[in-house]
Amino acid sequence: MKTIVICSGGLDSVSLAHSVAAQGNLMGLVAFDYGQRHAKELDSARACAKRLGVWFQLVDLRAAGALLSGSALTDNVEVPDGHYAEESMRITVVPNRNAIMLTVAFGIAQARGAEAVATAVHGGDHFIYPDCRPGFVEAFDTMQAHAMEGYGRVRLLAPFVHQPKSAIVTEGARHNTPFAETWSCYKGGEIHCGRCGTCVERREAFHLAGVEDPTPYADPDFWRAAIAAKEA
Amino acid sequence: MKTIVICSGGLDSVSLAHSVAAQGNLMGLVAFDYGQRHAKELDSARACAKRLGVWFQLVDLRAAGALLSGSALTDNVEVPDGHYAEESMRITVVPNRNAIMLTVAFGIAQARGAEAVATAVHGGDHFIYPDCRPGFVEAFDTMQAHAMEGYGRVRLLAPFVHQPKSAIVTEGARHNTPFAETWSCYKGGEIHCGRCGTCVERREAFHLAGVEDPTPYADPDFWRAAIAAKEA
Repeated sequence: MKTIVICSGGLDSVSLAHSVAAQGNLMGLVAFDYGQRHAKELDSARACAKRLGVWFQLVDLRAAGALLSGSALTDNVEVPDGHYAEESMRITVVPNRNAIMLTVAFGIAQARGAEAVATAVHGGDHFIYPDCRPGFVEAFDTMQAHAMEGYGRVRLLAPFVHQPKSAIVTEGARHNTPFAETWSCYKGGEIHCGRCGTCVERREAFHLAGVEDPTPYADPDFWRAAIAAKEA
Repeated sequence: MKTIVICSGGLDSVSLAHSVAAQGNLMGLVAFDYGQRHAKELDSARACAKRLGVWFQLVDLRAAGALLSGSALTDNVEVPDGHYAEESMRITVVPNRNAIMLTVAFGIAQARGAEAVATAVHGGDHFIYPDCRPGFVEAFDTMQAHAMEGYGRVRLLAPFVHQPKSAIVTEGARHNTPFAETWSCYKGGEIHCGRCGTCVERREAFHLAGVEDPTPYADPDFWRAAIAAKEA
């Protein structure tokens, strides 16, 4: 099934791209610039496409992104430290972001004759991002079946939607994903900060998967304390 | 219910905006520039917002629109004359256009605290545009309920989805919609061409509604022949 992967350049979507490529189904990568601070992600996504020998399409959604204010990922709001927790991480939600990116990706898929769009949403995203849950994935796929009826069916693939992030690390390692060349940090410094929600989650995922994390962090040990605080 | 209307500046969406305003529910208008030729539509949408005393938000989706090639509305393909007919009008389909515009509109609705997004899709659109059918409207609303779960429910309103375009003319006339200040033509000349699918459909709708059409057409009588040809 000829598949386009939505690739932010983060650990999850780069691992997904390597996994789809290993199956021989990778057609190309689509990335979105909605004005996020961490443009390093996009460099990582571009490098992934080059590495895998497929096309890379960056979609400029900055004008739309600017209208969806209130999010720490695009505005000048301070990114909270610590493990993902509903209250502190709500400000990282961009209204309807996944649905917007997916509809554009489906339009590109139809224009290019792809049969599927794959997204790396995973179980760890569920409690805070409603548009990463299995119910959303299923409803979106149904919506698209209606939207393109008679013009070719494109499927939505979300192979990690029922899995924890650690399973993505395991899958990524299986396909020799160069993890050090992926970017997760919400702060966008020289190296990963090690303190924001996504850095803590990333570090924890490697730990749980029993895979060595090759990422340099500014604060490499903060994650243990953050997780202990969350569990207390 | 505080409502945002997606307004292209055409007869349908301007009539819808006047109808929602008459109910006291109109919050603002959102329009999309996806590189369509008929930018006159957008001037008409902007004028509608001013007339009704609400905000107007133009969303620049040209970068995304450029990727969705193959459509006569955005590319240099000749727009076919004559009544809408599946084969000739397929080239006016922009892949996934409605789904893309709606997801962005829902993001704006959530950011601005609106309770509904209204779209002027109607029965006459069904046979050629799958993303204008009742099944799509229902599936989209369900998808959005999942996408924004816990962040506020925004409803999709499509009051004309089971009605012919002539019913929109009737509804528009009831609320004194200035039809001459709406723009439908796909060709984007000085005045409406009277020959393209949307001009023919527009002229026919006024005829069926028994409402005088104040629109100047370059070819005011072509529609009768086009409809006769379709019915033959």
